Amino acid sequence: MKTVGVVGLGVMGGSFCGRMKELGWRVLGFDPNGRSLKTARDKGWIDEGYADFSQGLNQCEMVIFCIYPSLLPEWIGAWQNQFASGTLLLEISGVKRAVMEPVQKILRNDLELMSIHPMCGRESKGIDHADPKIFEQANFILIPHDKNTASSIVKVSSLAKDLGCRNISVLSAKEHDTMIAFLSQLTHVIAVSLMDTHENEHLVEYTGDSFRDLTRIASINEEMWSELFLLNKDLLLDEIHQFQDSLSAFENALQNEDEKTMKEMMTLSTARRKKFD
Amino acid sequence: MKTVGVVGLGVMGGSFCGRMKELGWRVLGFDPNGRSLKTARDKGWIDEGYADFSQGLNQCEMVIFCIYPSLLPEWIGAWQNQFASGTLLLEISGVKRAVMEPVQKILRNDLELMSIHPMCGRESKGIDHADPKIFEQANFILIPHDKNTASSIVKVSSLAKDLGCRNISVLSAKEHDTMIAFLSQLTHVIAVSLMDTHENEHLVEYTGDSFRDLTRIASINEEMWSELFLLNKDLLLDEIHQFQDSLSAFENALQNEDEKTMKEMMTLSTARRKKFD
Repeated sequence: MKTVGVVGLGVMGGSFCGRMKELGWRVLGFDPNGRSLKTARDKGWIDEGYADFSQGLNQCEMVIFCIYPSLLPEWIGAWQNQFASGTLLLEISGVKRAVMEPVQKILRNDLELMSIHPMCGRESKGIDHADPKIFEQANFILIPHDKNTASSIVKVSSLAKDLGCRNISVLSAKEHDTMIAFLSQLTHVIAVSLMDTHENEHLVEYTGDSFRDLTRIASINEEMWSELFLLNKDLLLDEIHQFQDSLSAFENALQNEDEKTMKEMMTLSTARRKKFD
Repeated sequence: MKTVGVVGLGVMGGSFCGRMKELGWRVLGFDPNGRSLKTARDKGWIDEGYADFSQGLNQCEMVIFCIYPSLLPEWIGAWQNQFASGTLLLEISGVKRAVMEPVQKILRNDLELMSIHPMCGRESKGIDHADPKIFEQANFILIPHDKNTASSIVKVSSLAKDLGCRNISVLSAKEHDTMIAFLSQLTHVIAVSLMDTHENEHLVEYTGDSFRDLTRIASINEEMWSELFLLNKDLLLDEIHQFQDSLSAFENALQNEDEKTMKEMMTLSTARRKKFD
């Protein structure tokens, strides 16, 4: 029986524990929070739980990091002496440029770090919102580094399929962060800004699907997302500016009662949106 | 058996026909488009269909207008001589200030026009997308005019319940248009602008739920919405400006790496969004 360690038992870490257990792995959970360890144990998602990182890590042939991106370099610096030689490390952080290089630079030569992004996060935080099923049909992105070996890439691709992911694709760190800036970070900035536009509680009874859809992700883990935004600041600001330009173009068309331009923008958005169905 | 007329057999008109038929009314459909009439007939949603407005209208005790708002005053001017005295007219247009007064002003004294807004539109247009079930659990807004009688208000409230609507509320035309400018029109402007921000077809395989949610309504009937936007221009521009301010506040916080402000904005959006669940 193979042993996997999961570091950080939040919504993603808890989900990984539960799913890896279903897949027949022996699962060790690592988290300083005793309540999270207890929940994982109670659900049968881990075989052993450790609040102390000086134990257990040397039993793992694979370790999945589900901690805040800013904590990863520090954690590796402090604890990588615990790993057995040849341990494969996976990190799932939502931005890659700011995470991969600092960690690869300090990593022991006999360890390998693979950066992945299973695109199946949840808005809610904490293990109580974890669910082994979140990987089903999710997109899975592999962001290879020069140091990664073909055999580890095969191993991780195979794991992604076993998790239940639908589509596995390969991107560079820059491509990943650019894509994330538009598809994920910009959408969260818009949802938050829309929800904050003005008081709106008195409108609750009138909302239809469209407002609910646009603001679902305005309910957001402010600690994690402010970190992700800052770690991807340059690309996210660029996307915000491009969106502001697009919005201003529509605003100007409306201001000038330029029906032709408004219709063209709507025809374009309709055509583009169809490709996403 | 009571007879209702439905003018304009698009997605809303077709849905009304089907639902009124289920409720036991005799339903007459009015539309210059022969194919729409045929579809309504084939589905068993209408008892009779008329491409010519000079027939049938005098048989109706209630007529529901499901045509573009800009067409309504003109239609009333041209055809109101067809109605039997005492006919109750309902109009469902998505903006009210620009529609109610012009029509009320020219309406025969022995007719009554009630403005309503069942909030259950569909993005797709045409009777092929109509569905008698769209009223189920929808919010229903009644926008009374000084000329409306209590007995008609009771009649329409009762109809809303029969249609299956969940919640019936009363708003003034200005309140309605302000609410619509924020909850519906602004969200559509944002979705269109986001979809138009830049080329994005190569990103299709990476999208998660958040981008899909924010852009679902970017697939839009450009004829109807450009008309609705122009008819509500002042209030919509005001909402766009308030949203732009909110977005700029977030942009500035990110630019200045002002984590505190970003977190405060996310905490506020999270708290506000919870009320909509």
